[in-house]
Amino acid sequence: MSKTLHLTAFMRPVSLHTGAWRYPGAYADANFNFGHLKSFIQKLERAKFDAFFMADHLAVLNMPVEALKRSHTVTSFEPFTLLSALAAVTDKIGLAATASTTFDEPYHVARRFASLDHISGGRAAWNIVTTSNPDAARNFGLSEHVEHGERYQRAREFFDVVTGLWDSFADDAIIRDQESGIFFDPEKLHVLDHKGEEFSVRGPLNIARPVQGWPVIVQAGQSEPGKQLAAETAELVFAAPRDLATAKALYADIKGRMPAAGRNPAHLKILPAAMIVIGDSVDEAKAKRAHLDSLVHYDSAIASLSIALGHDASGFDPDAPLPDNIPDTNASKSGRAQVLRLAEQEKLTVRQLAQRYGGYAGLALIGTPKTIADEMETWLNEEASDGFTCVFPFLPQGLDDVTEKLVPELQRRGLFRKDYEGSTLREHLGLSRPANRFFPA
Amino acid sequence: MSKTLHLTAFMRPVSLHTGAWRYPGAYADANFNFGHLKSFIQKLERAKFDAFFMADHLAVLNMPVEALKRSHTVTSFEPFTLLSALAAVTDKIGLAATASTTFDEPYHVARRFASLDHISGGRAAWNIVTTSNPDAARNFGLSEHVEHGERYQRAREFFDVVTGLWDSFADDAIIRDQESGIFFDPEKLHVLDHKGEEFSVRGPLNIARPVQGWPVIVQAGQSEPGKQLAAETAELVFAAPRDLATAKALYADIKGRMPAAGRNPAHLKILPAAMIVIGDSVDEAKAKRAHLDSLVHYDSAIASLSIALGHDASGFDPDAPLPDNIPDTNASKSGRAQVLRLAEQEKLTVRQLAQRYGGYAGLALIGTPKTIADEMETWLNEEASDGFTCVFPFLPQGLDDVTEKLVPELQRRGLFRKDYEGSTLREHLGLSRPANRFFPA
Repeated sequence: MSKTLHLTAFMRPVSLHTGAWRYPGAYADANFNFGHLKSFIQKLERAKFDAFFMADHLAVLNMPVEALKRSHTVTSFEPFTLLSALAAVTDKIGLAATASTTFDEPYHVARRFASLDHISGGRAAWNIVTTSNPDAARNFGLSEHVEHGERYQRAREFFDVVTGLWDSFADDAIIRDQESGIFFDPEKLHVLDHKGEEFSVRGPLNIARPVQGWPVIVQAGQSEPGKQLAAETAELVFAAPRDLATAKALYADIKGRMPAAGRNPAHLKILPAAMIVIGDSVDEAKAKRAHLDSLVHYDSAIASLSIALGHDASGFDPDAPLPDNIPDTNASKSGRAQVLRLAEQEKLTVRQLAQRYGGYAGLALIGTPKTIADEMETWLNEEASDGFTCVFPFLPQGLDDVTEKLVPELQRRGLFRKDYEGSTLREHLGLSRPANRFFPA
Repeated sequence: MSKTLHLTAFMRPVSLHTGAWRYPGAYADANFNFGHLKSFIQKLERAKFDAFFMADHLAVLNMPVEALKRSHTVTSFEPFTLLSALAAVTDKIGLAATASTTFDEPYHVARRFASLDHISGGRAAWNIVTTSNPDAARNFGLSEHVEHGERYQRAREFFDVVTGLWDSFADDAIIRDQESGIFFDPEKLHVLDHKGEEFSVRGPLNIARPVQGWPVIVQAGQSEPGKQLAAETAELVFAAPRDLATAKALYADIKGRMPAAGRNPAHLKILPAAMIVIGDSVDEAKAKRAHLDSLVHYDSAIASLSIALGHDASGFDPDAPLPDNIPDTNASKSGRAQVLRLAEQEKLTVRQLAQRYGGYAGLALIGTPKTIADEMETWLNEEASDGFTCVFPFLPQGLDDVTEKLVPELQRRGLFRKDYEGSTLREHLGLSRPANRFFPA
């Protein structure tokens, strides 16, 4: 059988693009309107998407007030409450939520994802993030942000504790014999009793093993420790390489690390995030994006660039290239490396870079359903990706264009499913169900 | 207008009564079956209940394995994920979830409840608990449990931080002017910058002010600091006095503390938890309870008594009264006081006490719809309560008996609403919407 694409949606309620709330026809109130989110995910499910994934931050983004006041990102649903609610109005599509290993507790995280997996019938996925926003630390009692390397060390142990807690009960532990009165077999309950560098967690978890064994493990990280963590733990990666060559290198890099970590590279799907802008012609699609970018005020643009750099860029000369010697910070290293690469590749001025970052800076596929399907097919065949994490430029139209125009084209080519093959997210992604480490089959 | 009752449901998926999963017709799989929970809450909504409230624990309950294996409490949905999912399949009924002030972070708690309030259109309530289960501490990196007094001090500050975060945005802060590009008015955003004994939280919250201003504040505590915390902060109390006299005293005690805390006693509704067992005759109702209690194994019974006492009771003589000198622990003081009171009031042996605690130890209203409606009316008129927190002895039948037999009787007497008066939980409870402390109207 020839290879097929996996497609997930990566969203904010109004769009990841900061100008999107001003686009003609946009739902500017989507941050408060559960009905809009329900309509989005139900359309994606009808289009047979693998999963729906809501972006997250643990603070109002740190930008100057002149930019902040123009940003629809200041308010959003908390992803866990949102995804649980969406689980109740869908049947098949996967549900990916973010939980921070720096600012949350393994017991809480293990329990919530197990619960979402039971509620949804096996559709939960955990996006492991270490939280690069320095302002988040100040919302959790820390005056300084936790250092990058230590965040990843903690993330690795956090993962071990969470998966260990998910394995508290054997799959067949719960007997429920009303006659004898035995609810579960205590021989099939494991007390984790984890004592590590970062965490001391006794367990067991007070919820049965998730439907999927473990919810699907998701990661984004492109930094060195991020790639290593992905190779060791992730089953779905939505890293955002900027072009085919970078994507192929990243794909080979992450999958190449897996055997040394004792893993089969087929057990990780890499779905690069790509903003998809569709027109009846390539020129029309480009014009849509240009109009969208024009809706981003320069004050917001320069603030976004500052976040990406981890450094205030408002003092830079807008019409010169980026200065060379920007001081290091604890912010995301992969984010900064991407800015520097983009600036050099496209020879952009500070203003041009800022406009790109103020809108959406990542990979964009811009064209007709046919040209975009061609690109996706190339990426799949050249081992640059196993599919895509779709970013919609504006909502609802940008999503409708994908589900109504691009997906049918992919289906005609045999590149995408016409119906779900199974009922769990693992089944959609072709991932096996993890064995219980304490109760092997 | 004469006084009317408020009714909420306090539940575990299978019932709070530990023998309930074995009762004829019980849904023994309700801990895993979202469909059952959906049917329960939709029935309660059709009966016009004020709110649905899911019990919670942050550990597998600490009982000997011989008892544990008989307990349906070892697994349950996490309440937040469950209530969010239930929000999507209901329109009017309130949704109360527990969050621990000892083992969670104010920023997370403020954000999740605000999100649930937005998703549900103003139906969220926060049950503030300090978590008395010593095993919970060991799931969160602590080897010793946090001392009782310190837990309440932390709870009080936690409340101040959470409500301060909910007030981050003025109600009219979000402008969303697509033409000018201004999303919100930064003059109407408050940075909390809390620095206290227990917490340092900068803010602002990254979600707009909840629909209800603040989700409704709920508490159970009957200990001295619990009552004081309720008088200072709570809007709904589900304390479980064992009889009318105790209830009147508690009602007067908590409401009597409110003026000194600068609050109007009408702004707190006290709804004692009561297990309701309905029969066609009083004798039939009593027989149902006797059969239910008989389904609790003695090993579970003695373990439950040990939890209530905070002390292992398995060595006590089953046929003697409770020994006098049981050592003090950090477990819930109000729980232990209740055991001692019940033992003395009803002159119960250890075995009898254990059987009561192994099933459901709290207040029970047992009789016909008419006798129970009489009791409820008496409690309301004698200022022992503003309604009841209904505990169902077994499910689904125990719930159906309440919604199909008791509620119509209460409605005939004009004691309970025939339709919702408003759309938010505050409106159901007759509670005013709190002013924003930073942006007074």
